[in-house]
Amino acid sequence: MKTYLECIPCFMQQALRAGKMSTDDVKKQKLILDEVGKLIPSFSMENTPAEYGSEVYRIIKEITGVADPYKQIKEVSIKDAKELIPYLKEVISKSDNKLLTAIRIAIAGNVIDFGVDVPFSLKEDIDKLLVQDFAINDFNYFKSAVKKAKNILYIGDNAGESVFDKLLIEEMGKKTIYVVREIPIINDSTYEDAINSDLGEVATIISSGVKAPGTILSQCNAKFLKLFKTADLVISKGQGNYEGLSDVNRPIFFLLKAKCEVIAKDLRVKKNDIVLKGINLV
Amino acid sequence: MKTYLECIPCFMQQALRAGKMSTDDVKKQKLILDEVGKLIPSFSMENTPAEYGSEVYRIIKEITGVADPYKQIKEVSIKDAKELIPYLKEVISKSDNKLLTAIRIAIAGNVIDFGVDVPFSLKEDIDKLLVQDFAINDFNYFKSAVKKAKNILYIGDNAGESVFDKLLIEEMGKKTIYVVREIPIINDSTYEDAINSDLGEVATIISSGVKAPGTILSQCNAKFLKLFKTADLVISKGQGNYEGLSDVNRPIFFLLKAKCEVIAKDLRVKKNDIVLKGINLV
Repeated sequence: MKTYLECIPCFMQQALRAGKMSTDDVKKQKLILDEVGKLIPSFSMENTPAEYGSEVYRIIKEITGVADPYKQIKEVSIKDAKELIPYLKEVISKSDNKLLTAIRIAIAGNVIDFGVDVPFSLKEDIDKLLVQDFAINDFNYFKSAVKKAKNILYIGDNAGESVFDKLLIEEMGKKTIYVVREIPIINDSTYEDAINSDLGEVATIISSGVKAPGTILSQCNAKFLKLFKTADLVISKGQGNYEGLSDVNRPIFFLLKAKCEVIAKDLRVKKNDIVLKGINLV
Repeated sequence: MKTYLECIPCFMQQALRAGKMSTDDVKKQKLILDEVGKLIPSFSMENTPAEYGSEVYRIIKEITGVADPYKQIKEVSIKDAKELIPYLKEVISKSDNKLLTAIRIAIAGNVIDFGVDVPFSLKEDIDKLLVQDFAINDFNYFKSAVKKAKNILYIGDNAGESVFDKLLIEEMGKKTIYVVREIPIINDSTYEDAINSDLGEVATIISSGVKAPGTILSQCNAKFLKLFKTADLVISKGQGNYEGLSDVNRPIFFLLKAKCEVIAKDLRVKKNDIVLKGINLV
């Protein structure tokens, strides 16, 4: 997905939000906005928003010295998500369609996003998403792909959401590689966050090598690229991964909630819609 | 009022919105964002947001050649507002407190604002504001000041809102000077808009001389400044005028709806609250 002009004011908002998370020094917060502002002329609309996201967070790190402003928030998100696991396991076990319910829960976890300015209430959002209609629903293709697959490449998104990804991985019951970011960026899952989410119990965890809040193939390491090429099934969670992978020529299933107008527009759905979308399906 | 850091992403949003109103050329729209971005380092937080607003719209004019992107919208707003006049006159005539009702209607007109990203539905918003509690209500002071005043300086804000200002001016029944912007900026009232709103029937219309979306005393012309100094009562409508006048050392009554978090914070009220606030009252 290319960058839309609407992403530019949003970068400024993210810069301010993460700047405030990183420092109380108002002069430094202003300096972050100055530097992001000066960068705008160099933004090509041909790149994905996630690439600029990484620039914004690089500036914040340079100015404040804080590499992981969302560290504590990620820990709390994981803890909060874990507390819901007994409830969610019961929901799945009582469900007529366990796989679809696990998908819904994995998408619900996608609301734990501090990159967008959307407040959330985890338990309430989950309960809504358990009954919300899909705007795009390629479930039958997905079910069939899971059944055929011997191995799955599962590209994670936010910390906390990762805890719910575990439920879906368990439900699918296949050999799974879980992919995380190379470094802390917004509240996206790193290796450490995935371990804290107990994903090591159900999957092999690897880094994509990417330092941006999404999956940008040109920045991925060789290990990831090999697995991406050969995996029987690729699952991509969330907006940032969609941004990087939506135009890639291989079958991928995107599981996400459209939390901003730009992503919604690109997917031809409405903001707040939930999506299970397969591309390049054969 | 000083500029808050939160205003900076908002300038970018305004730039994009007004840029899209001015041209369909995406390259020019991007160029507008580039130029506004480059300007951010020069923004001092000591100035008022309205001053930067004028810079943003100057850039749009330079790049697109369009001096008045909201011209048509302003004409429609005035027409829509005029259609509600018979209904609103009846509301006032049936009211127990005609002056307060006319104030409420004048504040309701303040929702016609294309500078903030808040959709509105005029008739519905008016009906809500007719019963909404004031977060700050200096009505008794205001009533007394109107009673004593021989002349009133009434600083207008948006086109459309201007039509409702006429009802309040009629209700006050005093000699009134109505103040407009020097040039078109966002959808703020110019001399032409005030004439189209039939304000010439109840007031003398003058320009403040300001080219920004607010009243910045250092930019005002001598005529306005003399009247501002000598008027028995000064009424200031809307956010932009509040930004410029909130720290001025003379009695002023501000009538507005807090349409953004920054103004709400500065006034110590909540977003969407309505305010009739007097400063420096004796």
